[in-house]
Amino acid sequence: MFKINENYLKLPGSYLFSTIAKKVNEFQAANPDKSVIRLGIGDVTQPLAPAIIDALHGAVDEMGKAETFHGYAPDLGYEFLRTAIAKNDYADRGCDIAADEIFVSDGAKCDSGNIQEIFSVDNKIAVCDPVYPVYVDTNVMAGRTGTYDPKTEMWSDVIYMPCTAENNFAPELPKETPDMIYLCFPNNPTGATITKDQLQVWVDYANKVGAVIIYDAAYEAYISEPDVPHTIFECEGARTCAIELKSFSKNAGFTGTRLGYTVIPKDLKCGDVMLHSLWARRHGTKYNGAPYIQQRAGEAVYSPEGKEQLAKQVAYYMNNAKVIKEGLQEAGYTVSGGVNAPYIWLKTPGSMTSWEFFDYLLANANVVGTPGSGFGPSGEGYFRLTAFGTYENTVAALERIRKM
Amino acid sequence: MFKINENYLKLPGSYLFSTIAKKVNEFQAANPDKSVIRLGIGDVTQPLAPAIIDALHGAVDEMGKAETFHGYAPDLGYEFLRTAIAKNDYADRGCDIAADEIFVSDGAKCDSGNIQEIFSVDNKIAVCDPVYPVYVDTNVMAGRTGTYDPKTEMWSDVIYMPCTAENNFAPELPKETPDMIYLCFPNNPTGATITKDQLQVWVDYANKVGAVIIYDAAYEAYISEPDVPHTIFECEGARTCAIELKSFSKNAGFTGTRLGYTVIPKDLKCGDVMLHSLWARRHGTKYNGAPYIQQRAGEAVYSPEGKEQLAKQVAYYMNNAKVIKEGLQEAGYTVSGGVNAPYIWLKTPGSMTSWEFFDYLLANANVVGTPGSGFGPSGEGYFRLTAFGTYENTVAALERIRKM
Repeated sequence: MFKINENYLKLPGSYLFSTIAKKVNEFQAANPDKSVIRLGIGDVTQPLAPAIIDALHGAVDEMGKAETFHGYAPDLGYEFLRTAIAKNDYADRGCDIAADEIFVSDGAKCDSGNIQEIFSVDNKIAVCDPVYPVYVDTNVMAGRTGTYDPKTEMWSDVIYMPCTAENNFAPELPKETPDMIYLCFPNNPTGATITKDQLQVWVDYANKVGAVIIYDAAYEAYISEPDVPHTIFECEGARTCAIELKSFSKNAGFTGTRLGYTVIPKDLKCGDVMLHSLWARRHGTKYNGAPYIQQRAGEAVYSPEGKEQLAKQVAYYMNNAKVIKEGLQEAGYTVSGGVNAPYIWLKTPGSMTSWEFFDYLLANANVVGTPGSGFGPSGEGYFRLTAFGTYENTVAALERIRKM
Repeated sequence: MFKINENYLKLPGSYLFSTIAKKVNEFQAANPDKSVIRLGIGDVTQPLAPAIIDALHGAVDEMGKAETFHGYAPDLGYEFLRTAIAKNDYADRGCDIAADEIFVSDGAKCDSGNIQEIFSVDNKIAVCDPVYPVYVDTNVMAGRTGTYDPKTEMWSDVIYMPCTAENNFAPELPKETPDMIYLCFPNNPTGATITKDQLQVWVDYANKVGAVIIYDAAYEAYISEPDVPHTIFECEGARTCAIELKSFSKNAGFTGTRLGYTVIPKDLKCGDVMLHSLWARRHGTKYNGAPYIQQRAGEAVYSPEGKEQLAKQVAYYMNNAKVIKEGLQEAGYTVSGGVNAPYIWLKTPGSMTSWEFFDYLLANANVVGTPGSGFGPSGEGYFRLTAFGTYENTVAALERIRKM
């Protein structure tokens, strides 16, 4: 008789954003006349930029002709895209990353979930708290997290690094030594970030203790301050300790288009074994390449027109962030984030829990946000709003919140 | 100090098709004047059909306008596509599969590699031999296959079901009881298939011993004979023991477009736990949905124009299969497959091993095929050619082979 992966049964509740979607659908069904504004999930609302649309149409046309048809893509991505990434995201920033250290995929969520597979189940992970739920949940599924304590909402074998107002939402080096460290800057969900000097401390620490940093840089395009690193490979020594995850979802609106990439330097080794080889083997065996038309769209992100159009899109969302942040401050909320990230992190009013505030906001302002506790125990008492709505909806949401 | 997943190091050599690609590239580099014809990897050559191209362009246009832009897709797929699949691939064949039992993904390779994750690592797998390498390799990565014996090329904890000329390339029920049974019909690599009555024996067996059948129906569109089942759900009792994997790669040429789906009936349970729930949780946590534009292309596969155009495409490839099969027979080879599948399976001449014949064919005819031994020990002495080339190349390849 077959048996299942019992680790799945340890997961408490469903995936955070599925739970939110269900709650919102129920509310909308019960209140069909209410116009709900979604500032919860980090989904974008602006259409794809004209340069992207042109590239997509062009690639679709190619797929319709025998001479230019593209079948299976190279496992690790088309050369034209890997070269564009290596130049624009690394060489132009003075970082030493070769095109063949870049693995193109259908998005950073998949990669951030799958990357743990190439590591031993005995490794101990360290995560910021609060944190993007995929890091912990996928390690639960792999059996790497021990037992769950529903009271503390913590796993026995996970090292939590609290990020709260007390430490300015920047994690401190953990007391216990981890094997794998998940870092995400600009941060989801807090919108906080750290300076290059601060990140260098992490790189030095990882090299010293023999840990790997899995660095999620999905929100890099939103950095507005000069001393914030755009990639972990700006730090010296990162090539021997860091994996970087990047997404086209937030800088180019590809949430429904799907494209991302992961960088694994060939210097990152366990003994003689390059992690690069293990990930290449995984890609070759369990993945079949990102679609050709999406990879051409990715290439257009780096064209002069693409860059110009996407800079405007990012500016549009960051103006929303300003509207939210200032609106909340005027309404008396304690707020952070929103300067180098499209997320605004607020303290729930009074003694409300995160989910109480979620329900309160949905019922009274018909605005959807994300409960901070959904990201980890230290997120309790906080709440995330995103700048990815339309300007009109963002302004309307803030008006409603102010009237509550 | 972090450790790696040691199971990866147990994998002998690289992924089969990566090895072939490397060998061919080396040959081409050494012989730049030779025109190599590729009948190795199962990649298609015909461009996407006009109905698909129209759907792609239409969806791209939608992505360029705020009113019709699509962000994150529903985790499990858009309703419009799941409904079209449920109707055309199941209801119209009298099979009871609901739209919400269908999980849309970016392809059957990913699903066939990832599906083992929801099962215990203690489960024992049974595979046909020869077999699509992804089934075994992904179970190796998970640590489910024991130790590898380089002499026999077999894993200690895998149940092999030989498929050779002796049993007409149809597996027999295994002596040892498995927990998970991988079946693929029409078969990759042999091109063989089994009747509905024969498949019913497997379904009854699985229900009796409490095994799950993972049924790969990627080549279903190539079935030409009436008593061959198009889906395992034509068999009675399959809802309590079977998972079905389907691809748009071979029926619609989506190898570079990426779309597939997996069916998990809600009646398939381990105790109280629906496998459907586990896979839904995996999709929600580690996957972010197939792209909107690809899902619209998938929908077009089921439109009247799409069906008509794709039937012609399948007929085109099956004509190639006939050319290959008859050409090889005329040249004195022993050949099977090619009637309900785009694969022709031939006995290597004399006492040549599969890889010797690969090198011989590449050097003398400049034709690339796939060594049977790459699919498992019982594939030794066999060789696979695919019908997915162009008609012109297929004819030219056979002419060269006849002249060898």
